[in-house]
Amino acid sequence: MSPDKLSTFATAALVAAGASAGSAEATSRAMMHASLHGVESHGIRLLPWYCEQLRTGLVKGAPVVRVDQTRRAAALVDAGGGFGHLPTYRAMDTAVAAARDCGIGMASVVNSAHFGAAGPYALAAAEAGFIGFVTCNSGAFVTPFNGSSPVHGTNPIAFAAPNAGGDPFLLDMATSSIPWNRVLRARTEGLAVPPETAIGEDGAFTEDAEAARAGPAGRRAFRLQRRGAGGRRRNPGRGIDPTLFLAGEQFTARLRAYLDGLAALSTPERPVYAAGGPQWIARRERQAMGIPILPGLQAELESEALRAMVAFH
Amino acid sequence: MSPDKLSTFATAALVAAGASAGSAEATSRAMMHASLHGVESHGIRLLPWYCEQLRTGLVKGAPVVRVDQTRRAAALVDAGGGFGHLPTYRAMDTAVAAARDCGIGMASVVNSAHFGAAGPYALAAAEAGFIGFVTCNSGAFVTPFNGSSPVHGTNPIAFAAPNAGGDPFLLDMATSSIPWNRVLRARTEGLAVPPETAIGEDGAFTEDAEAARAGPAGRRAFRLQRRGAGGRRRNPGRGIDPTLFLAGEQFTARLRAYLDGLAALSTPERPVYAAGGPQWIARRERQAMGIPILPGLQAELESEALRAMVAFH
Repeated sequence: MSPDKLSTFATAALVAAGASAGSAEATSRAMMHASLHGVESHGIRLLPWYCEQLRTGLVKGAPVVRVDQTRRAAALVDAGGGFGHLPTYRAMDTAVAAARDCGIGMASVVNSAHFGAAGPYALAAAEAGFIGFVTCNSGAFVTPFNGSSPVHGTNPIAFAAPNAGGDPFLLDMATSSIPWNRVLRARTEGLAVPPETAIGEDGAFTEDAEAARAGPAGRRAFRLQRRGAGGRRRNPGRGIDPTLFLAGEQFTARLRAYLDGLAALSTPERPVYAAGGPQWIARRERQAMGIPILPGLQAELESEALRAMVAFH
Repeated sequence: MSPDKLSTFATAALVAAGASAGSAEATSRAMMHASLHGVESHGIRLLPWYCEQLRTGLVKGAPVVRVDQTRRAAALVDAGGGFGHLPTYRAMDTAVAAARDCGIGMASVVNSAHFGAAGPYALAAAEAGFIGFVTCNSGAFVTPFNGSSPVHGTNPIAFAAPNAGGDPFLLDMATSSIPWNRVLRARTEGLAVPPETAIGEDGAFTEDAEAARAGPAGRRAFRLQRRGAGGRRRNPGRGIDPTLFLAGEQFTARLRAYLDGLAALSTPERPVYAAGGPQWIARRERQAMGIPILPGLQAELESEALRAMVAFH
């Protein structure tokens, strides 16, 4: 399906379910990011669940979002009981503004429902010329070492850096072996989950998505890819404004050298990418060819379209 | 060996090798943190290597360390070509001061040599009542997905949070399956490395420390343990001052509830800890009973003592 049509449909369905235009647009924007980047688990498949949460009143459709600049470089964003997408985009705008002022800034969102994938908000910072870092808690899914029941969240981490003239660097990951929404997607489509990413009621690994109850901390899925220059530059602390310690063109040159270095290791059989690399390729393909919708999701979206009385085709 | 004696010995040996008192004390403090916490790879075993780097002039013993507050909440610390320990403690002090002012602060260290483990600097923030986050690049050790030669660093991450009346929360990890210094320690002591943490020249896993050349990104060793409360509180961005968004006593109460919750899952056979938990136990044992020194390291330290003409017993 064409990205534009899918985006229009998603926004209309959210509004029909009770969302304000601003909230619906932000939620749709975040889902479309994931669908375009091939992150199916956090893409358009979340729409029926979001609409249901609006209809049942579990999530407020037209929340009052308040930004409180509590400190010179830190803000608190109260999501007012609505979805996390709109307030998190706003939080990142606020953090970027603080970083313009002070070199680094942060904003924390409270009182919000689901915000989808973490990547789109980090990317928003990179698109504004800043390094973005986003993290979030989640429901318990991850078992602690030696424990058999889930305690920790899948607590995603996203990290983005601007790259003048090229795709930004974008790492977007769960710290669990598998995001919970990938398990749910496997259920919808009758697919298996990858080996050793999920465990069942009995504490043993399972590839059966229906049986999955928890997972270990990141093992198979953890591919944190950062620059190890081997030089003398060390960076404890965390950067937002990339020109703080390195002139803009040097920052870009170093990032480019890293990306080119990885590309040089690639063979047609075994391509080597930076984090996010395959997703930028997916994005271009999907912008040109459309977003694939599997049968399970297709049925759910058609049902949602009927309910919202909006077109889906 | 008693921690006090070991610390005095380390400082004296560093000074004998050319370090200034300030640099030697900071380096010794960081090594002792690791040795006390049972992180042998980054403890006193680094001393002979550090002394050698000083003697050969690869690292400056008495560097001029400069702190440049480039922005209101961000500083650049030039290590002047010396070890990273002293400037990184100073960087964290500077970041904490900025966080007092602005809610969040950062400092980046450049032009420095090795800084040991990342944990001690994050802990310094927690001891000052702040949330601390530390990261660092390293030489290439980690192979990218589909690649067979190392590209990325072991890029450690440490994260600490204050815990009034209890041990601070302290996560201290490499993002690789094994820290390179654990491979080196295994070589010194003739030990094997854990299965599937290191790969040899041929790209296959090896448990032979001598043959290890690289490793995958964190799999077996990655146990990122963070709070997944399952509630509606979400925290994108990054906190330094824990009272920013939550009154101090609430922060402590939540951290305590998390730690108590993990303790409640423990059985004598399968203890469940928060990140850093076993290390705090090691610390108490070692403070009381002394720090164990294996034969390979014992020989190296005795040789260092002879060279420095300082007592080691």
